[in-house]
Amino acid sequence: MERSFVFCLVFICFLVPATVADWNILKQKTHNGVKISLKNYCESWRINVELHNIRDFQVVPEECTEYIGKYVRSTQYSVDSERTTEECLVYLSTSCNLKKDGQDAWIFDIDDTLLSTVPFYKNNLGKKINVTALEEWMSKGKAPALDYSLRLFNEIKSRGIQIILISGRREYLRSATIDNLVNVGYYGWTSLILRDPANELASVAEYKSQVRKHLTSNGYRIWGILGDQFSSFEGNPSGIRPFKLPNPMYYIA
Amino acid sequence: MERSFVFCLVFICFLVPATVADWNILKQKTHNGVKISLKNYCESWRINVELHNIRDFQVVPEECTEYIGKYVRSTQYSVDSERTTEECLVYLSTSCNLKKDGQDAWIFDIDDTLLSTVPFYKNNLGKKINVTALEEWMSKGKAPALDYSLRLFNEIKSRGIQIILISGRREYLRSATIDNLVNVGYYGWTSLILRDPANELASVAEYKSQVRKHLTSNGYRIWGILGDQFSSFEGNPSGIRPFKLPNPMYYIA
Repeated sequence: MERSFVFCLVFICFLVPATVADWNILKQKTHNGVKISLKNYCESWRINVELHNIRDFQVVPEECTEYIGKYVRSTQYSVDSERTTEECLVYLSTSCNLKKDGQDAWIFDIDDTLLSTVPFYKNNLGKKINVTALEEWMSKGKAPALDYSLRLFNEIKSRGIQIILISGRREYLRSATIDNLVNVGYYGWTSLILRDPANELASVAEYKSQVRKHLTSNGYRIWGILGDQFSSFEGNPSGIRPFKLPNPMYYIA
Repeated sequence: MERSFVFCLVFICFLVPATVADWNILKQKTHNGVKISLKNYCESWRINVELHNIRDFQVVPEECTEYIGKYVRSTQYSVDSERTTEECLVYLSTSCNLKKDGQDAWIFDIDDTLLSTVPFYKNNLGKKINVTALEEWMSKGKAPALDYSLRLFNEIKSRGIQIILISGRREYLRSATIDNLVNVGYYGWTSLILRDPANELASVAEYKSQVRKHLTSNGYRIWGILGDQFSSFEGNPSGIRPFKLPNPMYYIA
């Protein structure tokens, strides 16, 4: 974050005229001699987040909160995400030789994969995450389903694949999480793995990797993972096909 | 490609009214009940390519060649790519403890990383790659520099880092490649590694991984790679920071 923030400042100081009002169209040129707009700038930030070139950002840059907020409430975000889930099905149908012995498995993240946190971030983009406020929101169990993910979930379930949910949510949110999932249509998963307080020193990437190792050592063949964070895929065991949903709202290492 | 093509057909049959003229606005709804335009569809294809959810495509879907062609000639593509190169510099300045003993190294791809093939693909998007035509174009040595990459190249050179160019271009194009690079401003690299005919059975990812292993066994500390294909980063040695430029024009495995 420090790094990213300093970089943004340097970038903005170079590009932006004196007043915030001018930000809509940045009349200054880049090094390259190309005139760019704030939209160009924020879109380049977003695509570089999804390319995993920009890492460890703690907040959406302040000047891009409006742009990013619009994106995650747009048709484009839905269509982008739906295409990701459709690619999961193409992959399952063409590249996976399921044994149907009860050991075929698929992993899902929860937040911004099965359930949307967009209603929470509506007023919180560009602010450092307030864990207390976020967990309070989660504990109400009102997160809406992401429709395309629900369809994928049901399709995977119908193929006899075991569904494992691995989330960075803490264990004490188990009951609220189950209620929320069931209320919006998710049911029939095999295992819901939440974060044990004893495990909170590890990074989310390490925690999720440990869980996957445990699952494979128990005989599960994990065919793929649908998640919105790179930390959902990193580390061992290797060779599990990742499917990354877009998420420009936050970064979890 | 087969897979992707079949998938596109299924997708299009579901979405698109009877005539091609209707494609500008797809009035049909997705499963999700959301009306989408051809722009929505092509943009979702593009972002899922960059997320590495869509793999091994052989051509840009025919109905998206215009959209993708516009993108790679747009300010947005320049700004997106420039941000990638700027992130390389942030990383070098904040996360790399250079020893400056002549063994610090940085790897660049050539095509669509240092030099642009957009002039070639202008008339070839959506067609299966004609290697003969592409190599004939390369042999003329007229590929323009990507300005932001040239600036990064010079900045890295000025920091005393050895620059290694690793390309899937074949060895017989060496002279044309050097002329092209020098003519548009690139000089002072340490090593230019092209593809040996003896090595053409391996995938590009395997070939590039072998080269990197050879470099590290010779004592180079490779701090990062700037490339436009995922195959430029895959495989061992691990732990080298990738920086992925956008490239929706083609996929090299």
